[in-house]
Amino acid sequence: MVRAGYPEHVSLSDALRLLMDEFGDARRTEEMRPGDALGFVLASDVFSLRNVPHYTASAVDGYAVASRDTAGASPATPVTLGREKYSWVNTGMPVNGADSVVMVEDTSLEPARGGTPEGLKIFRSLTQGDNVRAVGEDVMNGQMLACEGDPMTPALVSLFLCAGIGSVSVYSKPRTLFIPTGNEIVPGERWLLGDVFEPGLVAESNSAYASSIFSSWGYPLDVGPILPDEPRVIAEAVERASAEYGLVLVSAGSAKGRRDHSADIFASLGRMLFRYVRMKPGRPAMAASVGGTPVICLPGFPMSCAVALWSLVYPVLRALSGWRVSPDYISEAMGSRGNLEASLMVQHSSPQGMAECLRVKCADVEGRLLCWPLPTGASVLWALAEADGIAMLSEEHLERPMGSAIRVSLTRRPDFGMRLLFQGSDDPAVGLLVSSMRGLGADLAIRAVGSMGGLAALGRGEAHLAAAHLLDECDGTYNTSYIDRFAKGRRWRRRLIFYREQGIITAIGNPMEISGFADLASGRAVFENRQPGAGTRVLFDYMLRENGLGSSDIPGYDRVSITHMEAANKVASGVADATLGIKAAADALGLHFIPIAREPYELVFSERFDEHPAAAALIASLESAEWRDAVSAMGGYELPAEEGRSDP
Amino acid sequence: MVRAGYPEHVSLSDALRLLMDEFGDARRTEEMRPGDALGFVLASDVFSLRNVPHYTASAVDGYAVASRDTAGASPATPVTLGREKYSWVNTGMPVNGADSVVMVEDTSLEPARGGTPEGLKIFRSLTQGDNVRAVGEDVMNGQMLACEGDPMTPALVSLFLCAGIGSVSVYSKPRTLFIPTGNEIVPGERWLLGDVFEPGLVAESNSAYASSIFSSWGYPLDVGPILPDEPRVIAEAVERASAEYGLVLVSAGSAKGRRDHSADIFASLGRMLFRYVRMKPGRPAMAASVGGTPVICLPGFPMSCAVALWSLVYPVLRALSGWRVSPDYISEAMGSRGNLEASLMVQHSSPQGMAECLRVKCADVEGRLLCWPLPTGASVLWALAEADGIAMLSEEHLERPMGSAIRVSLTRRPDFGMRLLFQGSDDPAVGLLVSSMRGLGADLAIRAVGSMGGLAALGRGEAHLAAAHLLDECDGTYNTSYIDRFAKGRRWRRRLIFYREQGIITAIGNPMEISGFADLASGRAVFENRQPGAGTRVLFDYMLRENGLGSSDIPGYDRVSITHMEAANKVASGVADATLGIKAAADALGLHFIPIAREPYELVFSERFDEHPAAAALIASLESAEWRDAVSAMGGYELPAEEGRSDP
Repeated sequence: MVRAGYPEHVSLSDALRLLMDEFGDARRTEEMRPGDALGFVLASDVFSLRNVPHYTASAVDGYAVASRDTAGASPATPVTLGREKYSWVNTGMPVNGADSVVMVEDTSLEPARGGTPEGLKIFRSLTQGDNVRAVGEDVMNGQMLACEGDPMTPALVSLFLCAGIGSVSVYSKPRTLFIPTGNEIVPGERWLLGDVFEPGLVAESNSAYASSIFSSWGYPLDVGPILPDEPRVIAEAVERASAEYGLVLVSAGSAKGRRDHSADIFASLGRMLFRYVRMKPGRPAMAASVGGTPVICLPGFPMSCAVALWSLVYPVLRALSGWRVSPDYISEAMGSRGNLEASLMVQHSSPQGMAECLRVKCADVEGRLLCWPLPTGASVLWALAEADGIAMLSEEHLERPMGSAIRVSLTRRPDFGMRLLFQGSDDPAVGLLVSSMRGLGADLAIRAVGSMGGLAALGRGEAHLAAAHLLDECDGTYNTSYIDRFAKGRRWRRRLIFYREQGIITAIGNPMEISGFADLASGRAVFENRQPGAGTRVLFDYMLRENGLGSSDIPGYDRVSITHMEAANKVASGVADATLGIKAAADALGLHFIPIAREPYELVFSERFDEHPAAAALIASLESAEWRDAVSAMGGYELPAEEGRSDP
Repeated sequence: MVRAGYPEHVSLSDALRLLMDEFGDARRTEEMRPGDALGFVLASDVFSLRNVPHYTASAVDGYAVASRDTAGASPATPVTLGREKYSWVNTGMPVNGADSVVMVEDTSLEPARGGTPEGLKIFRSLTQGDNVRAVGEDVMNGQMLACEGDPMTPALVSLFLCAGIGSVSVYSKPRTLFIPTGNEIVPGERWLLGDVFEPGLVAESNSAYASSIFSSWGYPLDVGPILPDEPRVIAEAVERASAEYGLVLVSAGSAKGRRDHSADIFASLGRMLFRYVRMKPGRPAMAASVGGTPVICLPGFPMSCAVALWSLVYPVLRALSGWRVSPDYISEAMGSRGNLEASLMVQHSSPQGMAECLRVKCADVEGRLLCWPLPTGASVLWALAEADGIAMLSEEHLERPMGSAIRVSLTRRPDFGMRLLFQGSDDPAVGLLVSSMRGLGADLAIRAVGSMGGLAALGRGEAHLAAAHLLDECDGTYNTSYIDRFAKGRRWRRRLIFYREQGIITAIGNPMEISGFADLASGRAVFENRQPGAGTRVLFDYMLRENGLGSSDIPGYDRVSITHMEAANKVASGVADATLGIKAAADALGLHFIPIAREPYELVFSERFDEHPAAAALIASLESAEWRDAVSAMGGYELPAEEGRSDP
């Protein structure tokens, strides 16, 4: 679409093409010592200035001799040479004077005996040049050692030195300036002081990410001071920077208004290349040429900024410094450690006509590599840090059904064979197991999908273990009927790991004086519920019925949070007035807690759990004093005195 | 084998285990800013110090309103609010005062009309907290962000900043000292001056390689001055270094005698861990603990030193700085860009009981990825620089037959689909095509296997093209009968690319006054032959017969070189007195040349050559003025006036 005189809403490949067409040849060269040129690309072919070796050298360990002195020698008819006619040489030593070398294995040193002096017995006759390496046998003067376009490597550094090359011509790396802009962003150093409380202010973190990613790529980055969101100020800075730097990055704030400013600024200073890329996240990126210098405007949200850095900035840096931009360049930019095919554990819908960058975690269950997306849309890079890798979804597919095969560029290399996947009821105590597992060389990935979600996942073979606290209101027991329903005859083991208190959580001091379920139906308070299938929701529904109430009596009944902490946090923020949750969540946020029930929390293991290499680490962690003490310290938990295993 | 009080001739895995057992826990920690900690490993779990966001923020672009003001709103029954009852908010902006946000899509701004002021029409009713993000929704105070053992990444740098973390505890990187030793090595700076001619002296290049590889790994390396091969001097330096550094590397010279010294030195200063590793190259490595500091003695030959750095030094660096040493650590150390399975194009024998490190090149011919080893045993890293990757062959297999599948750790990522594999008669003019091919985005890999070897390879489907100049002495024609024999009915195309002069090459000034073949049989001169199957050898045999001579008449007949330059170089060095070769080889080395024949040199293409994506690049290169001029300039070549194609 070209409406404003330049393309808008371009595909990622079109954006790349526009950048490459404009800047792909703008390379400079410089001379430098090979040892300083690691990470640079050679700008011309390199030829040896030396012969290596520069002398005739022995090819073996043995004795340098005159070949004619060995005439007729054989194992049956050895020839003995006097001391002045042989000299020891190691491989690589010069053979001055001699014209051949007899291998030490073909000789025998005869000690002096009686009147006969020491001598060398030789069992093989030689001809001139035997076992002698010619001058230049490794590298010949004038031999081509590397081509224009080859990157400098440690091997080339060493080779060039031996070949007498003290200086090479390489393509220069551009210098880049990062200009943060925005009225609501706070410099990092200030942010760390911890006294910025004004709502709406956020840390200027994009320069920290950019500095780090540039460092990992091996390119220098300067960071300018934060500029206010004023077009004139920004324009001045960009114009000045475009004269001094090879690449200018402008980090936009997140307010929508500013993006229009940026395009106008760049259009007035130079020429816009494109605006808006059909990529999620990362859409509000744009690029321009100002005075022949590439200027790329990065979106303000951290994850959008990261994607724009990988997909637009990295290839420009590479092209400007002489590298061929490989088709896999985005994986390279994100520091990928290799690719894997994994099976999507949940259905995923992408926005129409947009490529999408998913942060995923993976687990190997029964030989199938599964993956699931981490929550998107956050203002920090938590999901990117937590992910095992990135799946770049092309715009061709709108819907990807559960089970779709997707390609994951791994950003870390976990030992999937030692990672257990837990799906089920959320509880902070389960998270406390992770550290211990890792210390034992294993790992635990946790998906909080609620009690029923976990048992269903276990039933589909999509987890190694689940956890549930599902009340069967018919008989007042926990879990058994649900487990039977999902297990369908399979022998799943159960393990009670603790009892915990559930109750009504309200704001500090209980300002609305909520004392029971009737108060939740009063209309004064807004409730925050848990998601369908959560054991806590099942408990809540049961308690409502016990109190003669229905879901329609509770304002906020349809509002759901996925974990205890999420729900409790909404109460702490005043977004909701009450929720049902565990005491540990209330205590963590200093909230008021009205105890309602004490319930058993059980792990449920797949029928083949015991065979898993990481099973022992999980059991050891559960039985460790370290974990038991940490759980007890949280408050609201009661650990069973014994191991509490209960087999079906 | 333990004979000297410590293990000798250990396997690579035993060597690693001995190092890890001894030094695997010797880690130190230090505090640093997250931005400085890239490449370091976290020494403790990291918890957020902040809630992010620290204010209730809008989750959408829309209008912050009081939820009660929207009661009853629906698409059919919209509610209109006056200007003081709504305010625009972007995603992430604070919602001070309001308790919910209506999405802009659910509203319509009504302009002022007549007496009615501007207002906001709302089409959906809200409850408290709708579209509002709670404090801490992204990151909660106290939430675990990363674990002990996690490496710092750009994402974590950004996340930690947002979470208020200004300092982290990481495992320190050890400081390493590299001590070059030896009486025959020359400092790099001196070597580059170009005035070192004494036979036996070589460049001290291992420190250059080590500095570069350490830099690529992200570890600091200090390099000490070259020490003479004197035990007392070395012992003093090692002892001093072991007190100041976390790792000490001693680079041995190559003389066999010294290795015994080293072991004695280390045994006297501390405790030997092992000596000799069953690895080729790299066998003479050893390790010791001196004052608790790891001391690793690296072999002197550059390739051996490189392998020891990858396989012994790298894992120690990693373990000391908190990384888990992955099973693939050698591939990591060499900077591998991924692995491939390839089929060995030649049979390969490994030494008994030794693992072997092969430098290989690869090519994709008709969908099969083939690989072949590059020449070993050189004193420079040419083969390592030239290789596409490394195959680490385990000691289990002594013989690997042609066609064996081997795993190649790629050190570069060539576009195999655009690389043509040439096997055949060596000629420097073919090498001149490579630069032009690469400029066209293609590549040419060259295996000099002689004319018949090339046709045979083409016949086996192991090349895209071959080259031959084989004289059929029955009818005096070139190539046709041989091509027919190997093509077995397949339609191979031929292309004459030049005529070249062959002749007898002797030392400058022709000191032995050789004028023809009779002189080669005189017994005064030693000949250097070409390998069986080489067109030059076929010509030589023909010329001998024409002159009434036999192979037994020629001293040196059994001595073979694989290329023209190799053979000519032997004459230039005095290792041989004469050879048969092309004028270009003689001219390159300033040797005497007696013309004997003018022969056609033809390329022979596989039947599917034209379909190859890189075929056009080859033809374009052959037809380019650039190549034709470069070939003509070499002397002894005659390019055909027209294209010179001759189809069968």
